[in-house]
Amino acid sequence: MFISIERNRLESIQEQIFEQARRQILAGSLRPGVKVSSTRALAAQLKVSRNSVTFAYERLINEGYLVTKPTAGTFVAPLFPEDAVRATGVAEIYSPDRSARSGSPDEPPAFTGRRHSILSTSRNPIDFWTQRTDPAAFPLRSWRRVILESLASAGRNLTEYGDPCGYMFLRTTIAEHVLDNRGIQARPEQIIILAGAQLALNLALRVLVRGREPIAVENPCNQGAAYLFESLGMTVLPYPIDSFGVDAESLVKSDARLVYVTPSHQFPMGPTLSLHRRKLILEWAQRTGAYILEDDYDSEFRYDDAPLPALKALAPNRVIYLGTFSKSLGAGLRIGFAIFPESLVESAGTAKALLDNGHVWLEQAALARFISGGGFARHVRRIRQSWKSRRDTLLERLSLRFGRLELMGTEAGTHIAIKVPERWNAHDIKQIARKSNVGVYTVQCGGGHEYGAMTFNAEWLLLGYASLSERQIEIGVDRLAHAMELRQGNGPAFRGY
Amino acid sequence: MFISIERNRLESIQEQIFEQARRQILAGSLRPGVKVSSTRALAAQLKVSRNSVTFAYERLINEGYLVTKPTAGTFVAPLFPEDAVRATGVAEIYSPDRSARSGSPDEPPAFTGRRHSILSTSRNPIDFWTQRTDPAAFPLRSWRRVILESLASAGRNLTEYGDPCGYMFLRTTIAEHVLDNRGIQARPEQIIILAGAQLALNLALRVLVRGREPIAVENPCNQGAAYLFESLGMTVLPYPIDSFGVDAESLVKSDARLVYVTPSHQFPMGPTLSLHRRKLILEWAQRTGAYILEDDYDSEFRYDDAPLPALKALAPNRVIYLGTFSKSLGAGLRIGFAIFPESLVESAGTAKALLDNGHVWLEQAALARFISGGGFARHVRRIRQSWKSRRDTLLERLSLRFGRLELMGTEAGTHIAIKVPERWNAHDIKQIARKSNVGVYTVQCGGGHEYGAMTFNAEWLLLGYASLSERQIEIGVDRLAHAMELRQGNGPAFRGY
Repeated sequence: MFISIERNRLESIQEQIFEQARRQILAGSLRPGVKVSSTRALAAQLKVSRNSVTFAYERLINEGYLVTKPTAGTFVAPLFPEDAVRATGVAEIYSPDRSARSGSPDEPPAFTGRRHSILSTSRNPIDFWTQRTDPAAFPLRSWRRVILESLASAGRNLTEYGDPCGYMFLRTTIAEHVLDNRGIQARPEQIIILAGAQLALNLALRVLVRGREPIAVENPCNQGAAYLFESLGMTVLPYPIDSFGVDAESLVKSDARLVYVTPSHQFPMGPTLSLHRRKLILEWAQRTGAYILEDDYDSEFRYDDAPLPALKALAPNRVIYLGTFSKSLGAGLRIGFAIFPESLVESAGTAKALLDNGHVWLEQAALARFISGGGFARHVRRIRQSWKSRRDTLLERLSLRFGRLELMGTEAGTHIAIKVPERWNAHDIKQIARKSNVGVYTVQCGGGHEYGAMTFNAEWLLLGYASLSERQIEIGVDRLAHAMELRQGNGPAFRGY
Repeated sequence: MFISIERNRLESIQEQIFEQARRQILAGSLRPGVKVSSTRALAAQLKVSRNSVTFAYERLINEGYLVTKPTAGTFVAPLFPEDAVRATGVAEIYSPDRSARSGSPDEPPAFTGRRHSILSTSRNPIDFWTQRTDPAAFPLRSWRRVILESLASAGRNLTEYGDPCGYMFLRTTIAEHVLDNRGIQARPEQIIILAGAQLALNLALRVLVRGREPIAVENPCNQGAAYLFESLGMTVLPYPIDSFGVDAESLVKSDARLVYVTPSHQFPMGPTLSLHRRKLILEWAQRTGAYILEDDYDSEFRYDDAPLPALKALAPNRVIYLGTFSKSLGAGLRIGFAIFPESLVESAGTAKALLDNGHVWLEQAALARFISGGGFARHVRRIRQSWKSRRDTLLERLSLRFGRLELMGTEAGTHIAIKVPERWNAHDIKQIARKSNVGVYTVQCGGGHEYGAMTFNAEWLLLGYASLSERQIEIGVDRLAHAMELRQGNGPAFRGY
């Protein structure tokens, strides 16, 4: 890496390092897989503070240009974001060569995935992490009761394999639940229980994908999905999102016959897919025989009006529906489900059996009791009210401290996206906030992935509110505003920027 | 299907149907994917009892020539056993074309897997099913206690994602456990917790396999593994087993750089891989850079002498070790683990995260408490003694009723294999036993898969004993012997055949 620092430039030293490294990586003079200098070595070489190098590296890592390997060091990423972009703005991802594999001893294997973020790396006491909920809201007493009842009547269920597709009592219960709540008509046999939506996505891909078929995705996209498609060598076609969800008008001209969408509360940016666009996508799928992977996470949490019908409810034959209890109950329970069209039930059942021999019986039995006894519906109503209050507090405090902000995804879910004031970079605000013991997240750090120019990543921050008390939310926003004012050096600058 | 029945032949009608259908399938006059007549239609056409056709179909299905699809009917299997065999006796499986996928509406997807058996289909009161243990032996009180203790101290673990590679307390506990019991030295970071060995196998393949690399397997093989390799389009090279385990002398001449073995108690036939052959395979792996997938199921249950060291203990860099608690605790808990070499830890961790976002926390926490508190070791000692008594009862009763039988896999595990008397076919005995309300299993029906001539499938029966009481075992053997004597029509014919 050849970096030259000019101390009298407007850009900070860390920005200069970031920008020069980024350019060299994109230009190919720093090639994928190459090891870069340690932060200490580069700081010594450039005669700058190690912190400047560390922050620059951190940003390069967060934005996908560098990767770290424990004990081995820091390397240029095997795939980097701008690879995604081709002429039209609709991207084709570089597909890694998956055929090479030499037999020499101790050679690293050909697997070239990137790991997505599901854990907050922050140790901040006030952490607007996007992917967790308040442990105090977990219905521990009720859950303890259904666990004990299930254990008491376990019979052979602890010592025998069950149906790899799931415990029939739970599948029946979920069939009723999705009919009541999402308008989806499905036989229990169409429903497969899995350890969460990520595994469900793996299963759907194993059933549907044979080679490098193109898959259309939202941009920005759920990182866990994006990195999975990448690791499987799939060709990804990203379509931009706006406040009505993904750009369906462009998507329906796609050559893809598979699309992954998050209609209820787009991840990471939060818009709800409009009814008009839902219809466009469904008509396209019907016409072309495409399949839609509908990740309906956060559908339980809609605050100001009635939820739109699930895509699955409108076109049952074209949609594989992915549901999860990670937000509505707890991510540590690891229970989700997929609903397959009738025509795929047999393939999906076989693929599921070959993938794993079924899910833990106890949690399935307990959840079936919890849902069928009405406890789950009561719990969701309670936490929906609680999350709504937290959201209201967050919006009010943001308004109080920052004036009018551009926001996305406020109407549903457990996090919002805010556009940063002009002349600010989201990554810098994240760093400043961290120094004030507040965790806020860029798209790329908060579990999203952006293809192409990464403007959302530069201009938006993600704030999750479901794990913080209303008082913590207020303090967090106050600290953030204060830290930005100090940095700006001219008082309450952000009110009505 | 063109079947002609000759009523005055020695072979039964069902045997004639079976044999003619089998020949037509192998000759290609009945092509893969073709729908065959219903049992009712064929019985009417041939003017034979529907039972004869049903039994013949059942055997064709069990031996892999036909497959049924719910509501759709019965079809010639997409891959059938003899496909496996090429000139040298070392086989190459037909690899399905995985590139074709048309976009026309409602076309079935390209996934062409077969589902393996993990559930007994028998409703017999005395069922020597191979893949379950006695529910009465489950340590329910202790398990209830560790579940409650874990729930009481859950904190954020129920509502947050954990490390996708597993709960560190459990990984540390397993690291100590495998060191004490299998001589394996591993850091907790090398250990990944998964919902059983099937998922662990999927993970290992995702890390190691990029195309249709050949994989060497035992013949007969674990069906869940065999059908998984097949569904991924891998080239399978089967090597025969004998009473010292897989034919390592041939295997080490293989072009494969990946091998799947079950050294402690070969599945399905039961022999323990000899130390000499262990060394051959390890030297081959060291020399060629091959990886060994060591499925160490049943290693807890060795009755008459000390267990041999795990392959993983002897060559940590070349072995991916797959462990399970399905036999030692309960299959319904769905907890297993994989131990990766240091060089694969990072890839495996990323691949695991992209596969699923981690295993259920509660069972992990409960198991860690159970192991670290000493309860698990006490439980295993207790059930080892109990299974040993059941095995002894089974062997004694078989000897009493059948005289000297050729046996395999008696020294370890929870099932044995017995060679059927001359002039008998294992499938016929299975059917006869079923009519006497006793479940015994051929290799193919009992969770195994045999490539090639299928002689083990024709000549051996599998009897699991860990889920039956000693009294049930005696009654089961008595009934089996009685039914065979009746069919033979000449008294206690099998004693010392």
